[in-house]
Amino acid sequence: MSETLGFIGLGRLGLPSAANLLSSGYALRVYNRTASKAEPLLAKGAQLASRPAEVVTPGGIVITLVWDDAAVESVVMSEGFLEQLGPGGIHVGMSTIAPETSRKLAAMHAEHGSTYLDAPIFGTPESANSRTLWIPLSGPKPAKERVRPILQAMGGQGIVDFGEEVGAGNIVKIVGNFLIMSAGLSLHEALSMAQHNGVDPKAVFEMLTTSPALFPAPIYQRHGKYMVENLDQRPYAGSQIPLKDVGLFKESARQTESSAAIADLLLNLLQGEQADK
Amino acid sequence: MSETLGFIGLGRLGLPSAANLLSSGYALRVYNRTASKAEPLLAKGAQLASRPAEVVTPGGIVITLVWDDAAVESVVMSEGFLEQLGPGGIHVGMSTIAPETSRKLAAMHAEHGSTYLDAPIFGTPESANSRTLWIPLSGPKPAKERVRPILQAMGGQGIVDFGEEVGAGNIVKIVGNFLIMSAGLSLHEALSMAQHNGVDPKAVFEMLTTSPALFPAPIYQRHGKYMVENLDQRPYAGSQIPLKDVGLFKESARQTESSAAIADLLLNLLQGEQADK
Repeated sequence: MSETLGFIGLGRLGLPSAANLLSSGYALRVYNRTASKAEPLLAKGAQLASRPAEVVTPGGIVITLVWDDAAVESVVMSEGFLEQLGPGGIHVGMSTIAPETSRKLAAMHAEHGSTYLDAPIFGTPESANSRTLWIPLSGPKPAKERVRPILQAMGGQGIVDFGEEVGAGNIVKIVGNFLIMSAGLSLHEALSMAQHNGVDPKAVFEMLTTSPALFPAPIYQRHGKYMVENLDQRPYAGSQIPLKDVGLFKESARQTESSAAIADLLLNLLQGEQADK
Repeated sequence: MSETLGFIGLGRLGLPSAANLLSSGYALRVYNRTASKAEPLLAKGAQLASRPAEVVTPGGIVITLVWDDAAVESVVMSEGFLEQLGPGGIHVGMSTIAPETSRKLAAMHAEHGSTYLDAPIFGTPESANSRTLWIPLSGPKPAKERVRPILQAMGGQGIVDFGEEVGAGNIVKIVGNFLIMSAGLSLHEALSMAQHNGVDPKAVFEMLTTSPALFPAPIYQRHGKYMVENLDQRPYAGSQIPLKDVGLFKESARQTESSAAIADLLLNLLQGEQADK
């Protein structure tokens, strides 16, 4: 367990996930654009790097959990990153990005003898803390086998293999986030309708998410709990994740001529366009 | 338990619900437009009526579980029905109908000294058999107290009180069915996108409905199980319920100037209109 891992991206999910690795006995070299965020990890023994390539051990494993496609690409293309990772190295990409970006990154790694894996995370800071993250994983088998114990140590309760094609993991993540947003925005429309018709939306929410036959699912329970107190606010106005990820869904659908009718509408609603009455 | 109840409407849900009442010791007089459907109940001791009013005991309880607003109205306005029910009588309306129809029916009953209750059912024939129906209930309190044990005997696992205003129960039911259809159609769009992108939709469905953090809910599990085998078919093409109930949602939203943007799109999708790409 004394292997030193590289970890880049210490945001809401990255920080508790990296902490889980430290407490499982892995040594970490970490990098974050805002270095001060690394402090809780340094206190637990992590080393701070001043640029991405510095976290990389030749032939080792580096994990990235950054905001979007551009952020992952800028790490990979940063000076010395791919050269340092080199033959046998593995880059575990845990951001939610376009499958085509994953494939492009995989090709760039292959040129240097290293492997890129798709391993986006379903989870919240709370589920990182409780080690109940779910991770759809895709890419070459030997690399997946090598990182699986690390993903478990990071808090992965369910690590689900989606085959050798890099990009598949992100399709699953994008599909999941689309469904989460669809559920949340539908719940908002539904509870608002109840309220407009004089029925207590809290009581409706309570019944729908309590009945074992209906929606006893964390997504409905968690999103609804906030929403029902704030029905006059545009849902998800405080987060950029829904727009980004439903946008990725729409793009992946468009490229393969699959329907994106619901995704299109969700994007309009998230952007706060006037809803049809 | 020897009270004789009237029961009108022996469809997919009515038949097993009525059977539950018989096996709980209630006597039943039943009516169905297609009389032959009553046979399994007659074999268990129910009496067959040749018209709606014949099931009614003066001052007693009659349950209707028919297709739509027009069908409930035609029962209530059928010859002798309201006169026979009379003072102290209770009509438990279990169909999914517009709240305004419920209120109209309540007023008609009040003129004859009887009470109309809103008690639509969340359930399937299977959940009637397993006595796990969920029923949002609204209307005058004394009537609700009198029918509660009957709803339990019918298979009601959760009977949730939504106050004295008739129509509230149906708002809850319409909200629930809207959410069910939104979940189902979104799941169809999502799994289709995965398939178009070369990812096995069954594996995606399995992960999303297994992870405790995502959609471990019967609606997703049950609808998805069928859908994932039939992704090339228009969802819900075999049922009139989605169009009817999402239509009721849209109408209740429209009347109160609440947004129906998602309901509008679902109606288009259910009607098989060309989806945006």
